[in-house]
Amino acid sequence: MIPSGELIQLVSPKGKRYTMILNAEEELHTHDGLIPLARICDMDFGQAVATHLGREYLVLKPTLYDLLKNVQRKTQIIYPKDIGYILLKLGIVPGGEVLEAGSGSGSLTMALAWYSGPQGCVHSFERREEFVDLCARNLERVGLRDRVSFYSRDIGEGFGLSDIPAGFIDVRTPWDYVDQLGRALQNGAPAGFLLPTMNQVERLLRALEDSCFTDPEVLEILVRPYKPVADRLRPEDRMVAHTGYLIFCRVMK
Amino acid sequence: MIPSGELIQLVSPKGKRYTMILNAEEELHTHDGLIPLARICDMDFGQAVATHLGREYLVLKPTLYDLLKNVQRKTQIIYPKDIGYILLKLGIVPGGEVLEAGSGSGSLTMALAWYSGPQGCVHSFERREEFVDLCARNLERVGLRDRVSFYSRDIGEGFGLSDIPAGFIDVRTPWDYVDQLGRALQNGAPAGFLLPTMNQVERLLRALEDSCFTDPEVLEILVRPYKPVADRLRPEDRMVAHTGYLIFCRVMK
Amino acid sequence: MIPSGELIQLVSPKGKRYTMILNAEEELHTHDGLIPLARICDMDFGQAVATHLGREYLVLKPTLYDLLKNVQRKTQIIYPKDIGYILLKLGIVPGGEVLEAGSGSGSLTMALAWYSGPQGCVHSFERREEFVDLCARNLERVGLRDRVSFYSRDIGEGFGLSDIPAGFIDVRTPWDYVDQLGRALQNGAPAGFLLPTMNQVERLLRALEDSCFTDPEVLEILVRPYKPVADRLRPEDRMVAHTGYLIFCRVMK
Amino acid sequence: MIPSGELIQLVSPKGKRYTMILNAEEELHTHDGLIPLARICDMDFGQAVATHLGREYLVLKPTLYDLLKNVQRKTQIIYPKDIGYILLKLGIVPGGEVLEAGSGSGSLTMALAWYSGPQGCVHSFERREEFVDLCARNLERVGLRDRVSFYSRDIGEGFGLSDIPAGFIDVRTPWDYVDQLGRALQNGAPAGFLLPTMNQVERLLRALEDSCFTDPEVLEILVRPYKPVADRLRPEDRMVAHTGYLIFCRVMK
Repeated sequence: MIPSGELIQLVSPKGKRYTMILNAEEELHTHDGLIPLARICDMDFGQAVATHLGREYLVLKPTLYDLLKNVQRKTQIIYPKDIGYILLKLGIVPGGEVLEAGSGSGSLTMALAWYSGPQGCVHSFERREEFVDLCARNLERVGLRDRVSFYSRDIGEGFGLSDIPAGFIDVRTPWDYVDQLGRALQNGAPAGFLLPTMNQVERLLRALEDSCFTDPEVLEILVRPYKPVADRLRPEDRMVAHTGYLIFCRVMK
Repeated sequence: MIPSGELIQLVSPKGKRYTMILNAEEELHTHDGLIPLARICDMDFGQAVATHLGREYLVLKPTLYDLLKNVQRKTQIIYPKDIGYILLKLGIVPGGEVLEAGSGSGSLTMALAWYSGPQGCVHSFERREEFVDLCARNLERVGLRDRVSFYSRDIGEGFGLSDIPAGFIDVRTPWDYVDQLGRALQNGAPAGFLLPTMNQVERLLRALEDSCFTDPEVLEILVRPYKPVADRLRPEDRMVAHTGYLIFCRVMK
Repeated sequence: MIPSGELIQLVSPKGKRYTMILNAEEELHTHDGLIPLARICDMDFGQAVATHLGREYLVLKPTLYDLLKNVQRKTQIIYPKDIGYILLKLGIVPGGEVLEAGSGSGSLTMALAWYSGPQGCVHSFERREEFVDLCARNLERVGLRDRVSFYSRDIGEGFGLSDIPAGFIDVRTPWDYVDQLGRALQNGAPAGFLLPTMNQVERLLRALEDSCFTDPEVLEILVRPYKPVADRLRPEDRMVAHTGYLIFCRVMK
Repeated sequence: MIPSGELIQLVSPKGKRYTMILNAEEELHTHDGLIPLARICDMDFGQAVATHLGREYLVLKPTLYDLLKNVQRKTQIIYPKDIGYILLKLGIVPGGEVLEAGSGSGSLTMALAWYSGPQGCVHSFERREEFVDLCARNLERVGLRDRVSFYSRDIGEGFGLSDIPAGFIDVRTPWDYVDQLGRALQNGAPAGFLLPTMNQVERLLRALEDSCFTDPEVLEILVRPYKPVADRLRPEDRMVAHTGYLIFCRVMK
């Protein structure tokens, strides 16, 4: 039995995925026909529900990874390989608080909200209205919207927050906001940045040198997938070679 | 002000780190002299406390990454780069439940306990008493011991659990426990494995083929660190080339 | 002035490349019109020759890399990143001798012939007539055909050669030919293998253990390309993740 | 039978390697005793020669890779993984001509001399007398000294050569010599550079933009070694993460 309010993912015969909070009073309209969601309440995860045309959709309990794969995007998103590491380095914790800028399509926002838990709070800064909307919609669909506070202020004038235990900055010119970030964070707090080019990393490192941040680390994470065939075990022919460089440091005022 | 009961990390002038739950009635004995912990209660994170010999120890709020770096180990541990990804792929969530075998030194156990949160539960299977003790001590020190149930049973005879929403197996011969794992997990649940050698991956893939698990994925994660010097930006000379292969799949009974 | 008999490469406006030994009495027929090659004899490298329709073709002296990129292929070829390393490990030297099996499309054959020089000799074993033809044609076009001797014999019955100073095997089941290779090579000689899957590497290593070969090495080579843009320096989004594993060892009879 | 004048490498019981041109009238003094080299003339490669104290030294015909491993170094050297690729990209060919700056310890010089063959010529530019001496000694020992012409001139004032078919620059500020290199090279000729830091790559790319060089490529090459154990096939724990970035381009005057 899957209760109303549960987060579910339906997988079509062709692999298309629909993510939603289960509402027994709604129907899902698909290319393969209509699914009255009430039927899913009588099922268990891992079973298949039929559309009115008889096509079977698998009912899964999505992992965070599944959700991130399905984020609607209008921007470059942050990938799971980077998100997992960011969580650990920032000390994200259930019940905790964290600040991020900008929200973008919201893949990192979703992960921060997921792991900050129902008692946690994510402060997400984004100036472009369309991205706030997109990010909010992506969070809404997976039931995490109420864990996130959006701010559209110009962070060049400060975050308007203080004593936040961790921060992550994913904007084009993070060096412009280093001092503001330092003021918003608790002393000793970890901060992180994602930047696609070496020129940006260079410029950020210079800004960090003249700031209250210490112990900068720069790294990149590569995921190498293999063909999962026991008789012919070998890496895939091609792989993602780059998403961005990660920079981590710590406030020491 | 740092309240008693808070998780703290003290960093010595030489970089040695002491992790503990702050107890105002205790003292910490170090090579640099004694620190009455009560003094820390009057301080803020990011400040330094002096030993009775006048050496200054930095007081930090540790991130999960900091804790993992400081795990006492008698076994090969699972590294942050892999742990972060495992969390997302397994759908670890505050308030959730997860099963792992074996406990080992407890680095993954610690991360699972951290992100399963105070309402969550980690079922950790380990037959060797010394590792249960070590793992329990590592968890105790960071205040996460009570989120973990240890089991010393022979998992060849089953896990004795059912309907668990996720599982991770880090033992030498995981192919011996695939059916047992399938029975312990909820239908549709994600499962993961870590294996150091290709021969083991091959053997596990064969076992998965004949099991209730589907959609196997095999991958490895590489972290490449850079020298954080703005004027001479370049990767470090050497890096970790291998920890293990990650395998993920899903139960479909 | 470019003399007849020189190896040249013509690059069309669209980047299509024509490789040939310059013969002043011939004409090249292209989609952009006809080029009387005699005209090229009056030019220098780096200049452009016009077709009778007025389209300009750049005249270049090709590097071995350029030639390898233009090999006509019906098989998986060996890539420059691997070839360069193979040359050094096998001790390929102008005036030297080397044995390879199989010829395939001839990319390695071409490199071996190129660096063995006019006094050198490449013994190339290939059972499938169509690959011998393809390989010979690829060599002919670049003027290296006469440095290579082709053999179509079944190498399971031996190579029919002895005292060869180096050997490279690129066939599906190299373990079947390890002893034969050992007999064909000079004592102390280096040998190399290329294999796409881990299962094959495992099987070859077992065969080498029971053979006259010592000091096996296994490695893979990765080339990571960058976008060559000064203002936005970063790796390309995707890269080749795998071509094959290289295995090197030495005969010690 | 190994004739006088042949290049040989002797390997001690502890793995120490001695490279030399065999001279039957000399003796080799080792920690394990004395070896009259005349004895080696009566042997074959792959056999062992005994010192007067009865310790056995293996007699090998060294590959270029073996020689490069044994180069005496006072500078950062260029590694085989990079050298192999450089050879192909520069079109190094037996009987050819090539220009390099600076000579350094001479690992690339050795490879260029090896593959340019007895009819070839390497023009090597190096201002520091001690490196010219070191490089010359490294070449002398392996019998390649006479293929290399050394120049100690200030290349800021030009190379004093023209119409050279390929060039490689391994100096700290290559952007200072781009125009001079352009003038020294044949039109259409390939050129290469090795640089350890991203800042240098950025600066070189800017200089190339304003020069007669076109089609810049930037890349790095990684070699990942495996433990050669059939039963436990896996990468080594650690690997070299960086030597330098390679940049290639072509003169188009």
